[in-house]
Amino acid sequence: MSSSSTLSKQVQFIHEIDKLKYVERMTCLFNSNRHENDAEHSWHLCMMALILAPHSDQPLDMLKVLKMLLIHDIVEIDAGDTFLFDTQKSHDNMEEELRAAHRIFGLLPKDQAEELIEVWKEFEAAETNEAKFAKAIDRLAPMMQNASNKGGTWAQHNVAYETVIAKKQRIKEGSESLWQYAKVLVDKHYKKA
Amino acid sequence: MSSSSTLSKQVQFIHEIDKLKYVERMTCLFNSNRHENDAEHSWHLCMMALILAPHSDQPLDMLKVLKMLLIHDIVEIDAGDTFLFDTQKSHDNMEEELRAAHRIFGLLPKDQAEELIEVWKEFEAAETNEAKFAKAIDRLAPMMQNASNKGGTWAQHNVAYETVIAKKQRIKEGSESLWQYAKVLVDKHYKKA
Repeated sequence: MSSSSTLSKQVQFIHEIDKLKYVERMTCLFNSNRHENDAEHSWHLCMMALILAPHSDQPLDMLKVLKMLLIHDIVEIDAGDTFLFDTQKSHDNMEEELRAAHRIFGLLPKDQAEELIEVWKEFEAAETNEAKFAKAIDRLAPMMQNASNKGGTWAQHNVAYETVIAKKQRIKEGSESLWQYAKVLVDKHYKKA
Repeated sequence: MSSSSTLSKQVQFIHEIDKLKYVERMTCLFNSNRHENDAEHSWHLCMMALILAPHSDQPLDMLKVLKMLLIHDIVEIDAGDTFLFDTQKSHDNMEEELRAAHRIFGLLPKDQAEELIEVWKEFEAAETNEAKFAKAIDRLAPMMQNASNKGGTWAQHNVAYETVIAKKQRIKEGSESLWQYAKVLVDKHYKKA
């Protein structure tokens, strides 16, 4: 693993993923109108996962959870950020994202490329304990941000209460207690609105 | 761990560390004059550690390495970013940083606060395999950025070749092959300058 061509592939990948810092999300930082980018979002999710792991309803391989959250949005360098409540573009633009995964992770030495593509697919499938918890954290973060920003994207895009609840239910599959907390955030906002 | 006061402390911490996204570093993104912030920097270091781990000269507990890199700059929310080559302010402003660690990690439930303070101290001490490798990655990243930006902070602050080499030697303690790569980056730049 220490040959110079191995390292040069890894360096190329490290340069390429710098672009994640330019991918802007719909959601804003806490109590702010500054939009978040995918790289800082990914860091924050990792921190949330570390801190909130005791609320998981299933045992977790934390290294796997962190790997998932570190890489989960890298495909957006090619495929762009898709708004969860977008009614035009399906959130499941898996084909475009799969092409992106193969192009970007494919810059790495073969064994590393294969591993990261598998981790990303596992996250997307949302079937293992780790993927369910990582998905729950990814759904929870923008709810906390919106709640601090007078409804944030819910308010700006007139998203109905039922739609938010329906889309966010996935949190329940990772953690019942985080789901209870998330529901309180939504209820509070829609009571005020 | 699922009482509401535990969760409310965790939520407060999650809000507090959002501020890391506003801490601006001296270094810029690759091929860019856009300064990097500490949150996206931390994400990039985690990705680099994952990818470059096979170059470590010692076996690593990767979960520990990632924890270190995720939290290593959080103290800068209070203490600010210190430029590695700053001759006025010592880079070892440990007292200020220690106060920051106690205040910020101290927002968490006691067991989590204690764990993260320990992980941060272990990183700072740079004695364990994990800390040596995490420090190596933290030193390598801005070298790669500077190399892509016509010398970046080395050029802007007229940092001498010998000073760069002296400050960056720490990479060698984590990985001889990454140190060899880092030296090539520096040599190339100073040959051109």
